[in-house]
Amino acid sequence: MIAWILIGIIAAFLTMFGFVPQIIKMYRTKSVADVSVLTLFQFAAGVSLWAVYGYAIQDAVVIGANIISLMTLIVALSLYYHYRSSAGNRKGSGIC
Amino acid sequence: MIAWILIGIIAAFLTMFGFVPQIIKMYRTKSVADVSVLTLFQFAAGVSLWAVYGYAIQDAVVIGANIISLMTLIVALSLYYHYRSSAGNRKGSGIC
Repeated sequence: MIAWILIGIIAAFLTMFGFVPQIIKMYRTKSVADVSVLTLFQFAAGVSLWAVYGYAIQDAVVIGANIISLMTLIVALSLYYHYRSSAGNRKGSGIC
Repeated sequence: MIAWILIGIIAAFLTMFGFVPQIIKMYRTKSVADVSVLTLFQFAAGVSLWAVYGYAIQDAVVIGANIISLMTLIVALSLYYHYRSSAGNRKGSGIC
């Protein structure tokens, strides 16, 4: 039983912070041209509704996990729009 | 009550198919250089464990939703590795 709960916790952490590697990559490369902003918005809308649903069913874990997800998505969207202006400034193109 | 269930269903569909816009973008542009493969693997591992957890708690919805998510992630990872070889072949660089 404990093992299953542990699997659930690991699953929750992996998906909750799933966009963190993407955030790190956007921050490091400052390039977001291939990133789908629709995917980011769709997840942001989805986890927001999950949090609302969590409130409806009075489940603190569902609320908390999805609010944390939403915060990572707000960071990802902020970085996306911050770097989008330089999306055309691809590696190598400056050399030309 | 029905309204809350509807919100839950919409939330599930939004996150379950969250990577579909990214898949479409990868397929259209054939460029994946800015996509974090770690994010794709982390979500794939996460939803796999969610499905295992769903099996443990005998919840068909948790199992089904996460298997569908896993399938979209397998498609995304396949496209990523298919196009990664041409990652250095950025727009404009061919002109040079």
